[in-house]
Amino acid sequence: MSVSPLAPASGFPDLPVIKGVRFAAASAGVKYQDRDDVMLAVADAGSTVAGVFTRSSTRSAPVLDCQEKLLGDLSGAPVAILVNSGNSNAFTGGAGRASVNAIVAETAKAVGTLESRVFTASTGVIGERLPHDRIVNQIAKLNESLTENAAEAAAKAIMTTDTFAKGSYATFDQGGTTVNIAGFAKGSGMIAPDMATMLVYIFTDATVDAQVLQSILSGINETTFNAITVDSDTSTSDSLMLVATGAAGATPITDTNSPAAIEFVEALRTVMLELAHLVVKDGEGATKFVAVNVAGADTDVSAKKIALSIANSPLVKTAIAGEDPNWGRVVMAVGKSGAPADRDLLSIWFGDILVAENGWVADSYSETAGADYMKSPELAITVDIGLGVGTATVWTCDLTHQYITINADYRS
Amino acid sequence: MSVSPLAPASGFPDLPVIKGVRFAAASAGVKYQDRDDVMLAVADAGSTVAGVFTRSSTRSAPVLDCQEKLLGDLSGAPVAILVNSGNSNAFTGGAGRASVNAIVAETAKAVGTLESRVFTASTGVIGERLPHDRIVNQIAKLNESLTENAAEAAAKAIMTTDTFAKGSYATFDQGGTTVNIAGFAKGSGMIAPDMATMLVYIFTDATVDAQVLQSILSGINETTFNAITVDSDTSTSDSLMLVATGAAGATPITDTNSPAAIEFVEALRTVMLELAHLVVKDGEGATKFVAVNVAGADTDVSAKKIALSIANSPLVKTAIAGEDPNWGRVVMAVGKSGAPADRDLLSIWFGDILVAENGWVADSYSETAGADYMKSPELAITVDIGLGVGTATVWTCDLTHQYITINADYRS
Repeated sequence: MSVSPLAPASGFPDLPVIKGVRFAAASAGVKYQDRDDVMLAVADAGSTVAGVFTRSSTRSAPVLDCQEKLLGDLSGAPVAILVNSGNSNAFTGGAGRASVNAIVAETAKAVGTLESRVFTASTGVIGERLPHDRIVNQIAKLNESLTENAAEAAAKAIMTTDTFAKGSYATFDQGGTTVNIAGFAKGSGMIAPDMATMLVYIFTDATVDAQVLQSILSGINETTFNAITVDSDTSTSDSLMLVATGAAGATPITDTNSPAAIEFVEALRTVMLELAHLVVKDGEGATKFVAVNVAGADTDVSAKKIALSIANSPLVKTAIAGEDPNWGRVVMAVGKSGAPADRDLLSIWFGDILVAENGWVADSYSETAGADYMKSPELAITVDIGLGVGTATVWTCDLTHQYITINADYRS
Repeated sequence: MSVSPLAPASGFPDLPVIKGVRFAAASAGVKYQDRDDVMLAVADAGSTVAGVFTRSSTRSAPVLDCQEKLLGDLSGAPVAILVNSGNSNAFTGGAGRASVNAIVAETAKAVGTLESRVFTASTGVIGERLPHDRIVNQIAKLNESLTENAAEAAAKAIMTTDTFAKGSYATFDQGGTTVNIAGFAKGSGMIAPDMATMLVYIFTDATVDAQVLQSILSGINETTFNAITVDSDTSTSDSLMLVATGAAGATPITDTNSPAAIEFVEALRTVMLELAHLVVKDGEGATKFVAVNVAGADTDVSAKKIALSIANSPLVKTAIAGEDPNWGRVVMAVGKSGAPADRDLLSIWFGDILVAENGWVADSYSETAGADYMKSPELAITVDIGLGVGTATVWTCDLTHQYITINADYRS
């Protein structure tokens, strides 16, 4: 498969080393051959960890296991994260749980930590038994090859239909100490709020209390990973984890409102937003990256409902694929959202071009200008509902022939 | 565009004459050339009329006009319905209302009825001013050419991206008198509950009180036109109207629970269900017709929510297009629906083939049998949630390359 036209020209970024975290990747042959398909990340003792997961009622065995563990052990033992691609271990009944247990036990033993500090994820086809022995057989070797510099290899090992590896980082000064945040993600189909077949792992050498870390992660998630959609489908396996090693030796963050916390949140938001955008830019078949901004809704909740209705509309998304400035379909999507709206108060912009106002096409609008604008690979659609002060932004991509091609024969 | 592979081999049915109703079609050149694009139907004085319309908050000027009129005049003057294709007169501001008024005034004058008894609809592109003079210029001629036998011509005049005209009828005996019901519909994109760019006109020579007619129509709508989806998008223009002339001279129906009403409802349901299925079978790009049955949900409302989540999932629909028995995606769609479900209680069938039970693939399931089944043009996916007694059925089609092709350049 060719690389998404929306992939960054600069390739995978040169991630900074996060002190206290090491990575390794290997080929276990779960489904893919001739490539790495399993990764291990280990963070030193004393690290804190937070996570956000899919809200699907049919979530996978690894997700259930992670959720239980995050509620429990705060022992400070080393944190291990083991992820495979090619098989999602979802809807695999009792066997799914047994696979998780086998992988967790072997990882804890090899790494030298508690099973309660081992987190796993699996991504790929649903409903097929995970051949976990193939993974278990690689764990000792993975542990021996851990290195601070293998984040890119880890990012590549967890890819499924992704066409490029996705990384992002931020470095900032906290009272004279340099703090780093680095993360990677895989997308790319089933991307929709709460959340997607999306796996995201972010590491920092900041020192952050575990509960504060969770609170920060959940808060930023709402306007980053929970504000992107590729096809409105929600995976059974979405996982976003954040690990803080404290190895930079900066001021401990024990309160979400402290100056140190605010600096950290700002840097983390940058990383999470960039990763979220990269996931959309690798949306299956995507050729356009689209920001949908809604203002003037009665509430923020309504604004997000309208923005998602636009961003998920197959008719809007196919029009974007066809570079057709079909604002009528935007009107349709506003109307079907279920949120309060008045046709005659709507205004719509494509980029900076005012397309419609007061319930009709703007006098100043020219179809030529609209059509020219739609040729850009990055687009913004802005709708003012004209009712109140509710706002939201979501990001999506277009719906193309390639999406159909990828998904009509994914398993073959 | 070639005719949908799901179109009935027998073509447009030979609709019975509905005494008291006449039709005409003409070419007004609104957008399409070299074909009829406007139709007029007139029902004699004394007819009753009922309607159901889109719930979009950005609905079109004709829809708003019809809704107002159905709340009002029960005078018994002749009923006229005038519909054009090629332009939806939606999101056209004050000009949209003026277009409706001009068409209504001319139709009332030509037909010899009250403006309050003239109903219009427009279907096609959104947001472009309707060149209503072209329609107005055809009205006198349409009125002169009205005939009892032109229902098929009328059905063809209102088509947009439809690949075949859709008609259905029922004939039954009511106390020794033959009663007829005949109707036609146009689809085919933007088909989703509440409802779609779907126009449906049904006529009967039964005698039905206006309020009873409305109650019957709204009731049957819920499990027919409000239970189909092509792409989850909701049109600004959906209209379903039912006109009863009373010309058969059968027992008047003045109560929804009378034996005469029950016979009528049964026949009308047959017609509405067939028309609803035909709309799905002409879904843009459709190659498969799919019934999604959900049983065992906690409530009927939950069952419909789950059924629609499956029927609208792009990943389920592309798998169907690829003839892939990818039941994992059905699990995903159940999980994302938001309705109560327990992974380990789910059972899934493709047709009569038990695919999964108790949270995992069934022992008896063979992928070969599943793949063979998926080759059929008509499919049924059944899910037992295992929680309660809530049931629902919805109908949909697959998501194919052709859908993208049609919608990526609809306006060009």
